[in-house]
Amino acid sequence: MRELKDIIPVRFDEDSGKIEWINQCKLPLDEVWKVSDSPKEFEYAIKKLEVRGAPTIGVYAAYAVASLSFTALPDNYYGYIIKNAEIIKNARPTAVNLSWAIDNMLKILEIHKNDSIENLREALVSEAYKINKSEYNAGKSIGINGRKLIKDGDTIFTRCNAGMLACAGSGTSYAIIRQAWQDGKNITVIVPHTAPLYQGARLTIWECEKDGIPAKLIADDMVGYTMLNTKGRKIVLVGADRILSNGDVANKIGTYQDAILAKYHDIPFYVAAPTSTMDMNALSIPIEMRDPEEVKVILGKLRVTTENSEAINPAFDVTPNLLINSIITEKGITEQPFTSSLKAQM
Amino acid sequence: MRELKDIIPVRFDEDSGKIEWINQCKLPLDEVWKVSDSPKEFEYAIKKLEVRGAPTIGVYAAYAVASLSFTALPDNYYGYIIKNAEIIKNARPTAVNLSWAIDNMLKILEIHKNDSIENLREALVSEAYKINKSEYNAGKSIGINGRKLIKDGDTIFTRCNAGMLACAGSGTSYAIIRQAWQDGKNITVIVPHTAPLYQGARLTIWECEKDGIPAKLIADDMVGYTMLNTKGRKIVLVGADRILSNGDVANKIGTYQDAILAKYHDIPFYVAAPTSTMDMNALSIPIEMRDPEEVKVILGKLRVTTENSEAINPAFDVTPNLLINSIITEKGITEQPFTSSLKAQM
Repeated sequence: MRELKDIIPVRFDEDSGKIEWINQCKLPLDEVWKVSDSPKEFEYAIKKLEVRGAPTIGVYAAYAVASLSFTALPDNYYGYIIKNAEIIKNARPTAVNLSWAIDNMLKILEIHKNDSIENLREALVSEAYKINKSEYNAGKSIGINGRKLIKDGDTIFTRCNAGMLACAGSGTSYAIIRQAWQDGKNITVIVPHTAPLYQGARLTIWECEKDGIPAKLIADDMVGYTMLNTKGRKIVLVGADRILSNGDVANKIGTYQDAILAKYHDIPFYVAAPTSTMDMNALSIPIEMRDPEEVKVILGKLRVTTENSEAINPAFDVTPNLLINSIITEKGITEQPFTSSLKAQM
Repeated sequence: MRELKDIIPVRFDEDSGKIEWINQCKLPLDEVWKVSDSPKEFEYAIKKLEVRGAPTIGVYAAYAVASLSFTALPDNYYGYIIKNAEIIKNARPTAVNLSWAIDNMLKILEIHKNDSIENLREALVSEAYKINKSEYNAGKSIGINGRKLIKDGDTIFTRCNAGMLACAGSGTSYAIIRQAWQDGKNITVIVPHTAPLYQGARLTIWECEKDGIPAKLIADDMVGYTMLNTKGRKIVLVGADRILSNGDVANKIGTYQDAILAKYHDIPFYVAAPTSTMDMNALSIPIEMRDPEEVKVILGKLRVTTENSEAINPAFDVTPNLLINSIITEKGITEQPFTSSLKAQM
């Protein structure tokens, strides 16, 4: 059994009310940690993807509300918390975990609104810890539930980062890869750049390296070529930012075309996510359109096109359930038809 | 009729025997021209993609052999030309135009080997001009032959750069786009980055801007999303680096997956190339594997992953003929089955 060490991307200090997080924008070249209790900083960290990955964003948002209960002043205590919680909730639209975590925390606030501030704080911190633990454990359970999908010798295509950084220290799709690796299976992970923010190149490659899991980086236009030209058994395994009741999956841009390419090459396509990512009531998913400059100037540093050119920058896409073989959650593996299998699982 | 100005990427000076070319690596931020008669420089310019695009490489290689007849010294006149021509011929393996042009020039050398040096030079320069003119005119004819494939209001997906820079001033797929634009059709071109060397972002966007043609840049993982979410009629139009007798097409990496995505979305997929790109005898196409560092460090400037990570870097892929609706050459439009239609055209 291979022993691996978890990377915990977000921590809370219950004495100071401050959150500490690794700035994912600086990885892998620099491992910079930030510490703050400023709501402006929290909003910025989510917007700029210093903190990213649907489950990690949820955990961070929960700690942010807990932190607000430390920095609120007596004259507008609840107003300050609610107002800033709403601002943080709107920092990014696609991952459901963010609004889910904030709403959860505001419910606790509501329950304890006639309590002492000490008791309220304790209740909020305790709820945030609970969310953190639950997301971490969900990732671990996803790994265990999904391990059997990976066979010795497999080549696993992934996208973006759905690992420890994205999932409060455990992972979604990466948790399964990691579990298979710990089980002693020999695997290779194919990691596309994931332009324009290069989370695959920057984060997933870095995590694989930390864990010693063989990985190969490709550009996003090499997925088809690599599927066609890689010998042996192949699977695709990705995370999710929001899953509808019919099994449609919003995930990082490129997932939709990866799924089409998998179908064309007869490669099974799996999605891994905690049930906190499920949105059983929504009928569609808002797609975050980010600043076109991100496509024109790589990582804010290298301009690759003319100054006046137009660009499009959807941060996510939706993969229709018909392209998905299985969805793996902490509760087990569901298959087609998802409308009934997901309902049964929830 | 919209009036446009050609950009001529390679010129020959028949007094000095020097070639002048725009350094495509520096575009679009700097328009730097290089002038040289050094065979080492010629090889370097092709290897590093200062000069790129199958037809332009062929024209440049022809001028390079002409240039060698100016710099060769009397004691090893023919040996010098042949040796350096062979080195230049091997600078890149995939585009057939390079070896085709060099072989053509060496035939002229053979024919005139008992002639005076003046006559030989004249014959070589004249042959190189002929190749240049022929490639330029082929591009213009491709534009005229293909114009009817584009309808008013179309959105056209392309890849890499198959325009003036790639085709001695005219273009292959871009010649058709340009012709449709000159015809007054309102079109939008969707241009993927084309990582890892970003020829789409750097060169095609630049050419569209020079011509005033509306274009939108996307990352390579946004092709599927953009096909799905763009309203109206859509087509894909790409160039080629080598075409087999059965219609299989080698082109810039990403073309293969673009073709699969086009098929999935029921979008016609067209390839445009001069007949000099046809390789009627070969059964397979060598794919150039380039330095993995290109995938790890964007344009040699911005590292996006860990230092020790592994990467794969195929520069081209092969699109099977079954995914292709039509191939447009200077002689006309061919359709399935290509084995007979291409043979008839050649």
